[in-house]
Amino acid sequence: MSSVDLFEKTLRPRRVYDGKVINLRVDTVKLPNGRVTIREVVEHPGAVAVVPFLKPDVILMIRQYRYPTGEILLEIPAGTLKKGEKPKDCARRELIEETGYKPGEMRKMLGCYLAPGYSSELIHLYKAKKLVQVKKKPEFDEKIQVIQVDLKEALKMIETSEIKDAKTICGILLALGNFSQSYV
Amino acid sequence: MSSVDLFEKTLRPRRVYDGKVINLRVDTVKLPNGRVTIREVVEHPGAVAVVPFLKPDVILMIRQYRYPTGEILLEIPAGTLKKGEKPKDCARRELIEETGYKPGEMRKMLGCYLAPGYSSELIHLYKAKKLVQVKKKPEFDEKIQVIQVDLKEALKMIETSEIKDAKTICGILLALGNFSQSYV
Repeated sequence: MSSVDLFEKTLRPRRVYDGKVINLRVDTVKLPNGRVTIREVVEHPGAVAVVPFLKPDVILMIRQYRYPTGEILLEIPAGTLKKGEKPKDCARRELIEETGYKPGEMRKMLGCYLAPGYSSELIHLYKAKKLVQVKKKPEFDEKIQVIQVDLKEALKMIETSEIKDAKTICGILLALGNFSQSYV
Repeated sequence: MSSVDLFEKTLRPRRVYDGKVINLRVDTVKLPNGRVTIREVVEHPGAVAVVPFLKPDVILMIRQYRYPTGEILLEIPAGTLKKGEKPKDCARRELIEETGYKPGEMRKMLGCYLAPGYSSELIHLYKAKKLVQVKKKPEFDEKIQVIQVDLKEALKMIETSEIKDAKTICGILLALGNFSQSYV
């Protein structure tokens, strides 16, 4: 079976909702086996997340109420790409806005899809160091707490499910590994 | 600042779309600072993903066209919870359907949110071993290739972005760590 046999062809795209962060499309598609079905597609502009190292063994994390989950989650700083914004610029902006720290050095670890079954969102994960404190500028609809977390403690919190956000788990585990010429 | 200060209150929920895998709500909410905004919420029933160990250093992965991303992705087996289905039962079912292997042993690693900014989806990550080959039963709208991947190769593919799916990256890195009384 070649890759070509896996593709699905759009027959009729249908726009259902155009919104603030996301849009929704419900497309009629033809499957490789010839059958027809629908695919629900959340259109998302893409995002960034940053693992900010305050010291070699201490990272900054944020606590934030996540309305869709009904829970306060502990995450690494993250945010959505603005129109035309480069991921690295977005990562720098979000880090400053959410934590009040400016990165002296930032390196991309990787990009990954979060929910490829229904969302186009691709998130770019960065590792930041040489942080310098500046002024925090959260967006009007963001209320966040910034905390400093020992890396060991963060790993424990992944194990105990105090951290239960996929990009945060990916980011922390990747930052600890030998990925992308790890420098910590 | 206490946790209470982070909560957002629903003023008016609005159902925009009720669909096959997801629903969409656009709620008007009151922020902790008293201001009013909207939150877009993709309602999702939850999901599972499984890292299936064929041997101590070989896992099963699947290649599948992911319509919302426009790409063929390499992922661990995964799927959506059916109504009333327990995550562990779902993980077993999806593993059999997608790979044709039945797990002799399965352990939960953790649960995490994939896109908590706009989606309620919580995914449960499992590790499976003692696999026994049975009949593959993909759903009518799934066309997938099953491949065997050396763990070392999988790690390299994370580094080179051949693997670019968050649950897959989380699953593989967690399965390698000392999480949840790792037994491999």
